[in-house]
Amino acid sequence: MITEKEFSKLHKDISTYIHRTPVLQSRLLNGLAETEVYFKCENFQKTGSFKMRGATSAMLALTAEEREKGVVTHSSGNFAQAVSLAAKSLGIPAYIVMPSSAPQVKKDAVKTYGGKITECDPNIKAREEAAEKIQKETGATFLHPSNDLNVIYGQGTAAKEFLAEFPELDIILAPVGGGGLLAGTALAVDFYGEDCTTIGVEPFKADDAYRSIKSGKIEFNETTNTIADGLKTHLGDKNFPVIKDKVAEVIRVEEDEIINAMKLLWERLKIVVEPSCAVPFAAVLREKENFRGNRLGIILSGGNVDVNNLPF
Amino acid sequence: MITEKEFSKLHKDISTYIHRTPVLQSRLLNGLAETEVYFKCENFQKTGSFKMRGATSAMLALTAEEREKGVVTHSSGNFAQAVSLAAKSLGIPAYIVMPSSAPQVKKDAVKTYGGKITECDPNIKAREEAAEKIQKETGATFLHPSNDLNVIYGQGTAAKEFLAEFPELDIILAPVGGGGLLAGTALAVDFYGEDCTTIGVEPFKADDAYRSIKSGKIEFNETTNTIADGLKTHLGDKNFPVIKDKVAEVIRVEEDEIINAMKLLWERLKIVVEPSCAVPFAAVLREKENFRGNRLGIILSGGNVDVNNLPF
Repeated sequence: MITEKEFSKLHKDISTYIHRTPVLQSRLLNGLAETEVYFKCENFQKTGSFKMRGATSAMLALTAEEREKGVVTHSSGNFAQAVSLAAKSLGIPAYIVMPSSAPQVKKDAVKTYGGKITECDPNIKAREEAAEKIQKETGATFLHPSNDLNVIYGQGTAAKEFLAEFPELDIILAPVGGGGLLAGTALAVDFYGEDCTTIGVEPFKADDAYRSIKSGKIEFNETTNTIADGLKTHLGDKNFPVIKDKVAEVIRVEEDEIINAMKLLWERLKIVVEPSCAVPFAAVLREKENFRGNRLGIILSGGNVDVNNLPF
Repeated sequence: MITEKEFSKLHKDISTYIHRTPVLQSRLLNGLAETEVYFKCENFQKTGSFKMRGATSAMLALTAEEREKGVVTHSSGNFAQAVSLAAKSLGIPAYIVMPSSAPQVKKDAVKTYGGKITECDPNIKAREEAAEKIQKETGATFLHPSNDLNVIYGQGTAAKEFLAEFPELDIILAPVGGGGLLAGTALAVDFYGEDCTTIGVEPFKADDAYRSIKSGKIEFNETTNTIADGLKTHLGDKNFPVIKDKVAEVIRVEEDEIINAMKLLWERLKIVVEPSCAVPFAAVLREKENFRGNRLGIILSGGNVDVNNLPF
């Protein structure tokens, strides 16, 4: 596992390629939550999500030879854009496998950032096969969006910045999908929090992390029918040990609570956030009796949403 | 007219009651505009618009006796909320005349901020009569949302902050409705800009300011059928002389250009802005050949929009 000194150096190294995102507050949302809530706006991060941190961190860890051969990933979401831009910034070729069903706007974004797209059938087997084929042909390094230590460390730098600006935070909440952001956050809280704990939040309809913590082994989602499309994935062997060790609790929220929280963030913070991003604030409103008196930090994970197709 | 020293003191005095709003940038929007564009986010201002600055400034200019009797205004929009909150912060009674047709969400916002609402028929005559009646009964001071020097000075503090942070700006663009923000901006640019000019922007469908500058006298809107609902009003005798003297140009934009600019700001800056707020960026895209090579500052005026009822 990384030391604090190495983690701090990694943060410094990626800082050239990422934004130091602002923290927002709202008197009115504090009123609704009945406590002080601070929002770390990774929706303002480059490519619109925290994934830019982990993608950059993972690529900086590559050798010169590996960089020359490039990186490959399969993603229809925020990681595809993050890998494309991080690779472009570092002069590394990026091969992105995307399901043919991915929205054109997402394909266009990847192209804009310079990623080379390979389309495949929209199922996980086809995605993995296409990525493997590219790996064999090009020698590119496969980057996993969440189950990779260097990715996890990169994602953790958001919480590091958060605590540097607001060392008084009692609890930091992050959404949990694949587990990279939550594991990285818990690591950073361990390094820099003064009596601060980390809580993960996920939809009831994709509650693998909650059940994994309960059973002590990686569980898989039984349903993934949630509006929080970034949280449908499951934990991995690299991030689960960190989560098991350092995360105090995983809270689950209902779909209507996610939509309500998302709308409040739009209306009151005047910012665009995607459904997955609203999940931790939904937990704060759902369990406000338990949070009362604590200064809460929420990592707003991303803002890549189709504004023509909103759930409210 | 105010001196720079008085203006600076006024800014200091209202600073306790307002946010110093952040400035955002987007690589992608710079690419579209083919120049550097800086966005001063008054949509993040208290009550969601720059109007909080002018309302506070006007109230701080009242005598102790006037403050005790309170303030009255008629508005269905951002000024109603701003007056309500500014009055609450200063312990001043606020009487707000609102048309009965105003959306419930706006009435609720005013109530939340402590404003005392009087409903009237939805026409300007009924609004003015209701406000006059309250003035007579309570002795409250009438506050005009744009044609009041202290309001104008307050609105100008956004441009003052903007130039303090980015003294290299060549042009600052602001929307023009009643003229308070544009006049205040031009004043601040005069005080603090180094070779910086001020440009106003309005819809073709409410182009009174363009025609007023052309004719040299206050003109009125022939149509107000624009999505930019904050820009339907006309200039007044307090702000027009400042605008005539200090504003380089007024640019007009089409409705579809406003909607396109608004959508780009949502998608790329990840922020919620109202249609009136997107008008200056629409002008930048419309006339990019003329702006090329200039560092542009845009005052994003507000973010109070019904997210259930978007034009895209």
